[in-house]
Amino acid sequence: MSESFDTTNWESQLPNISDIRQAHEHIKPFIHCTPVMTCSMLNQLAGATLFFKCENFQKTGSFKIRGATNAVSQLSKQQLEQGVATHSSGNHGAALALAAASRKARAYIVMPSNAPEVKKKAVLGYGAKVIECEPTLQAREETLNKVVEDTGATFIHPYNHPHIIAGQGTACIELLEEVGYCDYVIPPVGGGGLLSGTAIAAKALFPDMQTIAAEPSGADDAYRSFHAQTLIPSTHPNTIADGLLTSLGKLTFSAIRKYVADILTVDEDMIRYAMRLIWERMKIVVEPSGAVPFGVVMAHRKQFEGKRIGIIISGGNIDLGKFKW
Amino acid sequence: MSESFDTTNWESQLPNISDIRQAHEHIKPFIHCTPVMTCSMLNQLAGATLFFKCENFQKTGSFKIRGATNAVSQLSKQQLEQGVATHSSGNHGAALALAAASRKARAYIVMPSNAPEVKKKAVLGYGAKVIECEPTLQAREETLNKVVEDTGATFIHPYNHPHIIAGQGTACIELLEEVGYCDYVIPPVGGGGLLSGTAIAAKALFPDMQTIAAEPSGADDAYRSFHAQTLIPSTHPNTIADGLLTSLGKLTFSAIRKYVADILTVDEDMIRYAMRLIWERMKIVVEPSGAVPFGVVMAHRKQFEGKRIGIIISGGNIDLGKFKW
Repeated sequence: MSESFDTTNWESQLPNISDIRQAHEHIKPFIHCTPVMTCSMLNQLAGATLFFKCENFQKTGSFKIRGATNAVSQLSKQQLEQGVATHSSGNHGAALALAAASRKARAYIVMPSNAPEVKKKAVLGYGAKVIECEPTLQAREETLNKVVEDTGATFIHPYNHPHIIAGQGTACIELLEEVGYCDYVIPPVGGGGLLSGTAIAAKALFPDMQTIAAEPSGADDAYRSFHAQTLIPSTHPNTIADGLLTSLGKLTFSAIRKYVADILTVDEDMIRYAMRLIWERMKIVVEPSGAVPFGVVMAHRKQFEGKRIGIIISGGNIDLGKFKW
Repeated sequence: MSESFDTTNWESQLPNISDIRQAHEHIKPFIHCTPVMTCSMLNQLAGATLFFKCENFQKTGSFKIRGATNAVSQLSKQQLEQGVATHSSGNHGAALALAAASRKARAYIVMPSNAPEVKKKAVLGYGAKVIECEPTLQAREETLNKVVEDTGATFIHPYNHPHIIAGQGTACIELLEEVGYCDYVIPPVGGGGLLSGTAIAAKALFPDMQTIAAEPSGADDAYRSFHAQTLIPSTHPNTIADGLLTSLGKLTFSAIRKYVADILTVDEDMIRYAMRLIWERMKIVVEPSGAVPFGVVMAHRKQFEGKRIGIIISGGNIDLGKFKW
């Protein structure tokens, strides 16, 4: 977190709908307005009307470019000259690398040494500098601190940051402006950036609409925190949905408590089944994390029967080398 | 072939652009106008500007619904009452089943006993009757003849039929009306229905544009026939591109001789590589046959450098059970 944010009163730091709309104006030239897809076969299976916001087609293959681009757009000329930094083993790293490159700024991405080669290549492909570290949270944070000290780069947190949250909320605006009122909008939840932005936007556009978060039961810190009304970090998260391993931050948790109606979980078998259905029936490639919201709809079918549901497919970055072709 | 077509002068039986436009009007209410997608990463890899016409998003998962719907739309009330029949182990069977169902007509689909369960289910799901037979061409034709005799159903050939060719040509019209002039349009070739329709449409819309067919080198009867200027059927086709195993028909060969500029082949490794690139970079699911045109572009990179190329992705029906998840 930059020092300009008051870290004692988190809720007051949350972006509102104007911040999200402003973010949208800032980032529009740099992102895709992704398509909303429907599939009569999946509607039939779910017994509901589903609108899939396809952020797997987004630049860098996930919604993360929205928040990263917005965060970079808020930096001063001097900050841009010193570059940006983050730690990430996944989509946020690639997104920040591209967002920085679009503004001709340097990006320093701290990545664990066991991160997939394909992800490192993506980050390098956008011209960022990759700094490897041991695959522990402590090593990541220490390495990042050193990078920031050495370079003067601005740390852009992957989710616990108002500009990131505002950027991620823009996907929900596009979705609802295209399809109108839905009974529910369902994003997946990992660190909670996408969920926070979505919930703030949805509540502002349609106060009666409910935002429900979708979480793997193998990494259910948000579910447990939400119901305990206190932040409970993950200890040993274990799920195929590798984008959702992180725990909520204090800022995102404050948004979730205020704007989210419920958090529902889904087990690994159903995530796999949901992912396969999306691949087979919709003919699109989604990563496991991106299939979690549809998995929740299938796992809690009764609750969603007959409803209009906006589903945010968060990304499509999956290492196909893992498949036997 | 129905007896109403003169089978001695094939070329005179070919549809022209008016037939294709008329087919388009007939089928529009029953098909999707599929999106044309672009991908800067694949453009970079190919050194060309590629426009992918995504028939993997088409109803039934392939372009085949275009021809089948047009053929069914040309039948008399009495013919419709007696139903339609075909033999198919793949996409044409599902397409004819749905096309018939849309007109409340019966469909009889002869399928080899070794056809994938998922394809049988698809055909049954559209309400057609499946008649199983031994997996030989002779058994397929004999079984079909018996079905036609018993039921009075009209045989709809998968490709060697003017109404089928006219229907398949509509994908090219949509593509070119959306993106304008291209130097090349590249469909895959199996029996040649899509290729014939595409070549006729392209020549009419842009006389300077060239239609180039893409064929697996493991099933290269069209390549050999084209260069020998005489029809040479496949003997032991062997390719992962299971939609392209069939040999040209006399009608499609006459269209190819007249309208197609060249036929280029691509080997199995490059087909796999092209398919993987499309999945990974474009985040869409294409079947191996659908990746053959992009495979040809990559395999003959020099020839296509700097060109504008329309690529027809023929379908996205792939048995994901074959993958280890």
